Amino acid sequence: MRIYEQGHLFFVSLEPGEEMIESFRQLTEMRDWPAAAIWGIGAITDIVLGYYDLEHKRYIEIPLEGEWELASCHGTVSTRDHQPLPHLHVVVSNREGETRGGHLFRAKISAAGEFVILPLPSAMIRRYNERIGLALL
Amino acid sequence: MRIYEQGHLFFVSLEPGEEMIESFRQLTEMRDWPAAAIWGIGAITDIVLGYYDLEHKRYIEIPLEGEWELASCHGTVSTRDHQPLPHLHVVVSNREGETRGGHLFRAKISAAGEFVILPLPSAMIRRYNERIGLALL
Amino acid sequence: MRIYEQGHLFFVSLEPGEEMIESFRQLTEMRDWPAAAIWGIGAITDIVLGYYDLEHKRYIEIPLEGEWELASCHGTVSTRDHQPLPHLHVVVSNREGETRGGHLFRAKISAAGEFVILPLPSAMIRRYNERIGLALL
Repeated sequence: MRIYEQGHLFFVSLEPGEEMIESFRQLTEMRDWPAAAIWGIGAITDIVLGYYDLEHKRYIEIPLEGEWELASCHGTVSTRDHQPLPHLHVVVSNREGETRGGHLFRAKISAAGEFVILPLPSAMIRRYNERIGLALL
Repeated sequence: MRIYEQGHLFFVSLEPGEEMIESFRQLTEMRDWPAAAIWGIGAITDIVLGYYDLEHKRYIEIPLEGEWELASCHGTVSTRDHQPLPHLHVVVSNREGETRGGHLFRAKISAAGEFVILPLPSAMIRRYNERIGLALL
Repeated sequence: MRIYEQGHLFFVSLEPGEEMIESFRQLTEMRDWPAAAIWGIGAITDIVLGYYDLEHKRYIEIPLEGEWELASCHGTVSTRDHQPLPHLHVVVSNREGETRGGHLFRAKISAAGEFVILPLPSAMIRRYNERIGLALL
């Protein structure tokens, strides 16, 4: 992970092999940021996407084979159970330009990971919502 | 709608059932923001996407069935006819991770709606462009 | 290109016919920004997307026919060989709402191009990484 300080925000380059969710969790903890907004692009592998099945109140896991361009990535780091929780959604694309997307469970950088992170001054606490089955803000 | 003030920007959590475009229009009006940039993620339903047919100078409406992850959402609130006009483009994904995208006509939050909104200090006025058939900035 | 100054950032409206990558390169050079973060939406044509084939260390070019909504666009302008280098990833959508995505080699605005550009105070230099075959940050 290479970090470029850019005034109020940070540009973070994740290196091949680094896992996205864990990297952002560690960075938030290390820097003691109350919360953060994240967006970025890159190329990733070992991808598991998710779709939330509201009727059954559970996530469906969608594993993807091979290496994909990270066409879009957004989200935040908030707090759940006193721990920083990155919540990212992504769109990825393959060698035909075809796309897949959803909630990001995990992914490793394959070639490049270029992210902008904006630390936020106030913590945002997720609380479990029984009707939805998720910890919401 | 839950609003977290975060320095110069706002984190906004829309609740299940809230309509996105109308929520952002009301928020901009209520807070008296001249303009705003918006991005976010979530899970949505009652979705109508759009594609602008430049040849016939009209939008094609693309309704989607069921609940989709909001994989990506970007745009701005500018001004048209003295009213705040949210203009958002989205990418959504289903339980297979398949994606659809385009201009957002309307959508309701199904499970979660997590948005970052950055108020902008100067109004941006849309004016009708006859050659394109749209009100452009 | 119409530029709206908005405090620390800029809203940029590209006009029909303007090429995206070249427009952002010229703007960065003209304004003498050390680096920048970019995101936006619009409608584009003459599109060439890319997928990086890590095994063969080369980009595959993916040309698209016709006009597409620019559903999502993110990236940065950094520096390579003393020149500003815009690096953008996009997701585009057609009249059925179907999507394609990837690295953006080039695209021209067809109807509208609405971008937010955040100049960054410090230069970010890309250096060639032999193992990956790309100039990384």
